Amino acid sequence: MTQKSWILTDVDEGHYIDTLTVTPEDVGGPASGYRIGKRRLHGGLSDGVDVLEVDNDRMSFVVVPTRGMGIWHASVGDLEVGWNSPIRGPVHPAWVPLMEPSGLGWLDGFDELLVRCGLESNGAPDFDANGQLKYPLHGRIANRPAQQVSLSVDGQSGEIVVRGVVEESRFHFSKLRLTTILRTRVGQPRLEIHDLVENLSGTPAQIQLLYHINFGPPLLQPGSRIVAPVHAVVPRNKRAVQGISSWQVCGPPEPGSEEQVYFCRLAANDEGRTSVLLADPTGHSGASIDFSTSALPCFTLWKNTAPERDGYVTGLEPGTNFPNPRTFEQKQGRLVTLPPEGRASFEVGLAVQTSPDEVSQAEKAITQLQPADEPQVFDAPQPDWCAR
Amino acid sequence: MTQKSWILTDVDEGHYIDTLTVTPEDVGGPASGYRIGKRRLHGGLSDGVDVLEVDNDRMSFVVVPTRGMGIWHASVGDLEVGWNSPIRGPVHPAWVPLMEPSGLGWLDGFDELLVRCGLESNGAPDFDANGQLKYPLHGRIANRPAQQVSLSVDGQSGEIVVRGVVEESRFHFSKLRLTTILRTRVGQPRLEIHDLVENLSGTPAQIQLLYHINFGPPLLQPGSRIVAPVHAVVPRNKRAVQGISSWQVCGPPEPGSEEQVYFCRLAANDEGRTSVLLADPTGHSGASIDFSTSALPCFTLWKNTAPERDGYVTGLEPGTNFPNPRTFEQKQGRLVTLPPEGRASFEVGLAVQTSPDEVSQAEKAITQLQPADEPQVFDAPQPDWCAR
Amino acid sequence: MTQKSWILTDVDEGHYIDTLTVTPEDVGGPASGYRIGKRRLHGGLSDGVDVLEVDNDRMSFVVVPTRGMGIWHASVGDLEVGWNSPIRGPVHPAWVPLMEPSGLGWLDGFDELLVRCGLESNGAPDFDANGQLKYPLHGRIANRPAQQVSLSVDGQSGEIVVRGVVEESRFHFSKLRLTTILRTRVGQPRLEIHDLVENLSGTPAQIQLLYHINFGPPLLQPGSRIVAPVHAVVPRNKRAVQGISSWQVCGPPEPGSEEQVYFCRLAANDEGRTSVLLADPTGHSGASIDFSTSALPCFTLWKNTAPERDGYVTGLEPGTNFPNPRTFEQKQGRLVTLPPEGRASFEVGLAVQTSPDEVSQAEKAITQLQPADEPQVFDAPQPDWCAR
Repeated sequence: MTQKSWILTDVDEGHYIDTLTVTPEDVGGPASGYRIGKRRLHGGLSDGVDVLEVDNDRMSFVVVPTRGMGIWHASVGDLEVGWNSPIRGPVHPAWVPLMEPSGLGWLDGFDELLVRCGLESNGAPDFDANGQLKYPLHGRIANRPAQQVSLSVDGQSGEIVVRGVVEESRFHFSKLRLTTILRTRVGQPRLEIHDLVENLSGTPAQIQLLYHINFGPPLLQPGSRIVAPVHAVVPRNKRAVQGISSWQVCGPPEPGSEEQVYFCRLAANDEGRTSVLLADPTGHSGASIDFSTSALPCFTLWKNTAPERDGYVTGLEPGTNFPNPRTFEQKQGRLVTLPPEGRASFEVGLAVQTSPDEVSQAEKAITQLQPADEPQVFDAPQPDWCAR
Repeated sequence: MTQKSWILTDVDEGHYIDTLTVTPEDVGGPASGYRIGKRRLHGGLSDGVDVLEVDNDRMSFVVVPTRGMGIWHASVGDLEVGWNSPIRGPVHPAWVPLMEPSGLGWLDGFDELLVRCGLESNGAPDFDANGQLKYPLHGRIANRPAQQVSLSVDGQSGEIVVRGVVEESRFHFSKLRLTTILRTRVGQPRLEIHDLVENLSGTPAQIQLLYHINFGPPLLQPGSRIVAPVHAVVPRNKRAVQGISSWQVCGPPEPGSEEQVYFCRLAANDEGRTSVLLADPTGHSGASIDFSTSALPCFTLWKNTAPERDGYVTGLEPGTNFPNPRTFEQKQGRLVTLPPEGRASFEVGLAVQTSPDEVSQAEKAITQLQPADEPQVFDAPQPDWCAR
Repeated sequence: MTQKSWILTDVDEGHYIDTLTVTPEDVGGPASGYRIGKRRLHGGLSDGVDVLEVDNDRMSFVVVPTRGMGIWHASVGDLEVGWNSPIRGPVHPAWVPLMEPSGLGWLDGFDELLVRCGLESNGAPDFDANGQLKYPLHGRIANRPAQQVSLSVDGQSGEIVVRGVVEESRFHFSKLRLTTILRTRVGQPRLEIHDLVENLSGTPAQIQLLYHINFGPPLLQPGSRIVAPVHAVVPRNKRAVQGISSWQVCGPPEPGSEEQVYFCRLAANDEGRTSVLLADPTGHSGASIDFSTSALPCFTLWKNTAPERDGYVTGLEPGTNFPNPRTFEQKQGRLVTLPPEGRASFEVGLAVQTSPDEVSQAEKAITQLQPADEPQVFDAPQPDWCAR
């Protein structure tokens, strides 16, 4: 038996580990070269943030239990995967005024490679008829701390598993629980996320979930390409219409440029699985995500061509819905209804390509998913896709 | 001399004890079997919360200095006293968005057996003419940390005393201080709270205080009874009217059921003291509270027959007022005015009954308070009792 | 070489020192008698606040990295410099609901001798046409923690330097950085602040900065005088008009009195430097500030004659603007525009006088700045000075 487990946090049991390092010597078995470290950060906006740094000997990444088990950034060898946000985090949620009247406080903590938007709501802030905030930008889950965190390592197979439980509850209102299992394997430039969302309430709930997966340089450069098997692409607004002809190509940073957002319906394979690739202009490196279109039927592409210091970034965003205000998405029937004690599962993989061969293999796999019919590329926002 | 004292927190003096355990050996004297522990919690929503666990050899309870000196839960032998909130706390106030536009953020931290609602305001959120929040649900005091906490134990009498000071201040606005003294005695299933509220300002203040004391299973079950010496009972709204004929009996959990609230005027003994009992259906166990009707003239009964996982709970709530929006209560003259440097005192006892004898004694004591006149049970909300 | 440096916090580098004491033995050189201590506070509203206590053998003061590098209070010998706020801090920003709908949450943490108001905005809360908060009272910078803090001591010259970096950023919105350098010298009753504000964005930014420097007893007493070289003085509102004839004299504490605010244009010397003195009624002690009118052209005098327990305090407030709502100040052209990567510098000195000689020297220096023309003292609010 060469599997070992550690409970890092269990609030109900009063269990908490401040600092931990795990190396092959701690586990045994043939798997080697990896290193996992758990730390608590101190000072500034990161004060009190727990981070779990996983290095599987090929890919390194940082999980942030204090921020809803998001992934701060990653790297494969020298290749940085993530982006340079003007926000220098990871930011403790105490500094993030989610519920300020504008509904935009979420932006104060936004610097992750992968951040979940949900669970009760995601998307643009939603206001009532009096202009009072109902649902803030991208919801609460990314700024809720994990109540349970555990780690297990299989020294035989080299599998490293991080599990976290994050709750988003309000008495009299929703009682939602996210249980996330993140897997990676020694030596592989890939991680997989299996998320289970449960409605703990005795009454039905309607949820939303979107994975905001964000890439900056060097993967993102002027001329970087987005490869996706599309049925349909819809520009969110006039600004996005301007760039519709080159929606699959990334533009250069431009001071004062406004973000461009495209809503997509993607094709999938027989198991309902699809993939999207961001490849650098030379085709030497890339990052791809894969997911099931039945659980995550809405794909959003976010192109933020701001100057680098303002956050030059592109987001690949599979979701249960498009990131419009919740009320709009509800009208379109794009909320997920969970009955009492109901649950929904979501799986997202993230892989990194570090050679022309790997990039072209990833691209070929996506091309094979592309439907025979010409993709439908709309030249204007569509009423049931785009709010307002 | 077998009395010993510990200062656990004194912010002004820079004094803070992270961890402490007190047992009879630390004190001396004949009192035995008790144990008091102070800890700081780590991880999740409880990160940074200080708790003080008191076991008097019969009754155990947890005081939470970080949450306004509330009482998290209690037990007597095997009998759990408290409730299972869908919120899994104790929740650090940093996670409680009290002042979000809806005014309902308080619910994010609500899981206590005893939580104070006040001091500037309590009750339903109160908005100005533009719909902008003025006073949030149940006020701020439960989400303010104690600036001073101390403990003393008398090894002779077996008296255990916890003292805390919590301030609710805003420059240019109210400057209120709560000094709470909690007493219990070794071997007794009872605790007593003596609260002093002071107006530290040079100008008058108007305060509100309500003790939200909450019980779930096993004390609360379908058929559990509320025994109270009532002059008058008023259903808060139509929903409460539906249950007025059985207002003294607890109903079963029902998915989707809305809470029922009854406002009561209670009779008291010659010293102005009254008591309310919650007894399980078999009469084998119960919990009772006692207080003075001159300081706390308004008694509210809160019946929340939600499914257990949503919080099946009944609240016994003595207050200076009914939990309507502050503006309404002010119009009814139910705010307490404190002159400059003025103060008001409040005493609430909580006792637990664990045998049919104890339950029937508690019931008999209450029955003796019941006035000769038939209680006035209204079949509709009354205009000066119920907002809207 | 008798200069030594310590990095106390550097979030990017994962560097943080919990506790440090520096004395002449740690540095060497002839400078003696000083003591610098860094601590983290625990418990109550101060839990998790870092403080840096500097005693230069004449003047002591406390810098608070967790609160935007503000100065909590100071003393010279027995003379307390600062004020007794009804808020008992230093308050961790997690307890300060800056963005609550009223925009007044800042007041929950206000107890400093010197607090910066800015950077995106300062002044009275600013609302949109629907009454929704846009800019909260006095902005965010005082409730943002330093990402970097360092200390250096020159054992030769006796110079003590504290450096801090505080960022005020929101993705898609402003990206501002304050780098503050605070200098003092062994044996001198004086400190100097050099602030650099940078616009880290690729697009222009408009900033505001005001130094809210606050004095209570014993420097403030009935009859204390404000000595300033004024071109013009404008009462902010009717309440201030009532006291215009004695605007340079401090009144007694009065329960229920409303604050009085005067907006001033000051004269300066050939280098553009000016000074304002607060002297006690006997002329035995005083505190003066000095600054450049080109960087800080607007001077505000704040007289808060509340009872001592409510905060009897006078503020000397040099700023880029008057503390009206931001929108008003913008219309008056009183915002500072920073181009991409642009920066602005601000220097403020604070000196304390502890003898009649020192006071009269400070007064004489100011008198020499007074222009030959009679100062223009308005008897009513002026439209382009005062909002509404």
